[in-house]
Amino acid sequence: MRRNIITVPIRKVSDVSATPEQDLLAVEEPLQIRVGDRNVAITMRTPGNDAELAAGFLFSEGILQDAGQIAGITTGPRNVITVKLAAEAAPGLDRLERHFYLTSSCGVCGKASIQALETIGCPALPRDRPCIEVSVIHRLPDMLRTRQMVFDRTGGLHAAALFDASGELLNEREDVGRHNAVDKLVGAAFLQGHLPLNDHVLMLSGRASFELVQKALMAGIPVLAAVGAPSSLAVELALRFGMTLLGFVRDRRFNIYSGDFRINSAPLAFRP
Amino acid sequence: MRRNIITVPIRKVSDVSATPEQDLLAVEEPLQIRVGDRNVAITMRTPGNDAELAAGFLFSEGILQDAGQIAGITTGPRNVITVKLAAEAAPGLDRLERHFYLTSSCGVCGKASIQALETIGCPALPRDRPCIEVSVIHRLPDMLRTRQMVFDRTGGLHAAALFDASGELLNEREDVGRHNAVDKLVGAAFLQGHLPLNDHVLMLSGRASFELVQKALMAGIPVLAAVGAPSSLAVELALRFGMTLLGFVRDRRFNIYSGDFRINSAPLAFRP
Repeated sequence: MRRNIITVPIRKVSDVSATPEQDLLAVEEPLQIRVGDRNVAITMRTPGNDAELAAGFLFSEGILQDAGQIAGITTGPRNVITVKLAAEAAPGLDRLERHFYLTSSCGVCGKASIQALETIGCPALPRDRPCIEVSVIHRLPDMLRTRQMVFDRTGGLHAAALFDASGELLNEREDVGRHNAVDKLVGAAFLQGHLPLNDHVLMLSGRASFELVQKALMAGIPVLAAVGAPSSLAVELALRFGMTLLGFVRDRRFNIYSGDFRINSAPLAFRP
Repeated sequence: MRRNIITVPIRKVSDVSATPEQDLLAVEEPLQIRVGDRNVAITMRTPGNDAELAAGFLFSEGILQDAGQIAGITTGPRNVITVKLAAEAAPGLDRLERHFYLTSSCGVCGKASIQALETIGCPALPRDRPCIEVSVIHRLPDMLRTRQMVFDRTGGLHAAALFDASGELLNEREDVGRHNAVDKLVGAAFLQGHLPLNDHVLMLSGRASFELVQKALMAGIPVLAAVGAPSSLAVELALRFGMTLLGFVRDRRFNIYSGDFRINSAPLAFRP
């Protein structure tokens, strides 16, 4: 059984006090699914029940119809799982590869590793800026919510908003897909020639996954604040690249998972 | 400006009363992103700011570095957007296609259309079963929550659970990706030879998107209940295939978006 929870040291801020604590994170790691000698998918998942995940994915995609088509499922090192077929080929497999060739991965799956990100040539974040006041962070969730026009009416959208270091809301986008909301926000800045966003804060209405930290990093955004929890890989990536990552930002509380040097701690009372 | 909200007729159940109402849904539709004459991605998104979405996606993937590389962005019919490059090719584009060839789409993106699902040969759902009591539906969220071991400790996971028609919890899976939680659940049934799950209810801890309705449909599950909101395409797909789709299932309330014939309405007082 693979671990699906890890413990990380955080600084928990509540109103104007800060305490060092341990926080539990859901583990997020890439899984490469192979059918025989073919790579058919990479998905970012929580380890555990990987054989079920591979089987369920292949069934949902219409590749497999019943369990008898599977000769065996073997778990290899480095998050690779291989489904061996009883017959030479499953009827749907060629269609799958053609289909995947025409379409794509999205941010949720694919690329899937910090190494790959380093290969892309992700720009370094400035170490010395911006400096964010705790009071500014406390205000972010309400300001995001005020602008979530469609969410208020449907309850069905993710939002992403860009703030400057003083907490002024610069832009906001909503989408059924959280990676799309961030792509729209970053895309708007890209089309206006405003990248990198080195003095900005990205606020998310939901959880912070690997792909969202990655997108912020590509855009040069040094501070990412999320209303929800971060995943293990989101924290790992933020630590590696020196990003300030804040989670559970709501009700005048938040957790600092990395990059606390960008938070002005002067107004905070520290409790051991 | 494309519409991003639609209105649908629902039946709103609160405790033991039911009223017909209109509900607002966030629109979900596929967007095919092309670079020149190459298809590079399909994503399920909320219409609006599509040029930003395409630009932000290509930037985040490391394909484009600045806006000057774009000669123009044109929106075509049927949810296609084409980014025309100023130079013949972007440096990263070949790498992207190779990468996408090796990896995959996940449930969130790709396939992307109800027609494609009909092509796969999605099995028909039984029209006459199961019959679910309102009191059973009211109990589902608490039972799901009781079993969400990792969520309780991290706040960071999606859960999917399988119930029988009497409300007994049969299996439950959690994952950072909601499509993975469903794949694990369906995969477990698949490996045990229990498909199709024609007498079962699938309960989700979050929102119901197109891909999740699709996965339930492939597994033959006639009733999908979500704690959160459904998207427009989720409702459209459920209606097309005669699935019972329930949203906002919590606090002894829920909305019926389609397939009300599987809900035993005898105990309900109807209010016009």
